[in-house]
Amino acid sequence: MAFNDEYFMKMALAEATQALEKDEVPVGCVVVSQNRIIAKAHNLTETLNDVTAHAEMQAITSAADFIGGKYLHNCTLYVTLEPCVMCAGALNWSQISKVVIGARDEQRGFINKNLYLHPKTEIVLGILENECSQIVKEFFRSKR
Amino acid sequence: MAFNDEYFMKMALAEATQALEKDEVPVGCVVVSQNRIIAKAHNLTETLNDVTAHAEMQAITSAADFIGGKYLHNCTLYVTLEPCVMCAGALNWSQISKVVIGARDEQRGFINKNLYLHPKTEIVLGILENECSQIVKEFFRSKR
Repeated sequence: MAFNDEYFMKMALAEATQALEKDEVPVGCVVVSQNRIIAKAHNLTETLNDVTAHAEMQAITSAADFIGGKYLHNCTLYVTLEPCVMCAGALNWSQISKVVIGARDEQRGFINKNLYLHPKTEIVLGILENECSQIVKEFFRSKR
Repeated sequence: MAFNDEYFMKMALAEATQALEKDEVPVGCVVVSQNRIIAKAHNLTETLNDVTAHAEMQAITSAADFIGGKYLHNCTLYVTLEPCVMCAGALNWSQISKVVIGARDEQRGFINKNLYLHPKTEIVLGILENECSQIVKEFFRSKR
């Protein structure tokens, strides 16, 4: 299987599925450097009682720990749902090279807040958008 | 000594001083509930090699752990420097009751990005503004 955006987004979706199994809002992500996954995480805000425990926040900390430095240069984050303001702020500080987003989050995502990531950061939208959107929609439908 | 905003901002400044002693950007904060400090933290981004290790992020996690729930209702954060986008996003998720800010951060702070905290959150600006501003200014002056 080719190491392309769809491949790594599937890995992020597998993380989202792990969140779902814990009754967490199903968002997952992986950080990739040179075709290698160096960090992966899923949302754990309920499990940890901690609003900061979004998938991206954990993955940024974990990737930096792996690298041994705080900047995520030459790294790509694959995340199933558009990052919120908090996570976009953290990604900005990290100077990550690329962020690949599955589904948009029109209400909570950073894009409609007119926020920007670091000038060095490339953004790709819409990879496996349907699958990434569907898992979140079904979660919230089941909660009603 | 009265338990007023100046009192708790002094405690936040003491945390900032601890950051300074570690050669970190000197920002500190405390979380107060019913006149009791339930969490305190200072910036540790260099020490931990982690861009997410801002004082506020650590204090939010720590206060939620103390409370045993993720929402910081009936809590006040005293922070020496205006929170950045990441920390403002986290404070928004936390639904904290009140945020008291020492010095403004015109460039990196959330206010000039037209971001808002939670509708429930009261914001107070300018408590011990000079001291809070001075410690950061002196740090960056020493780095030039």
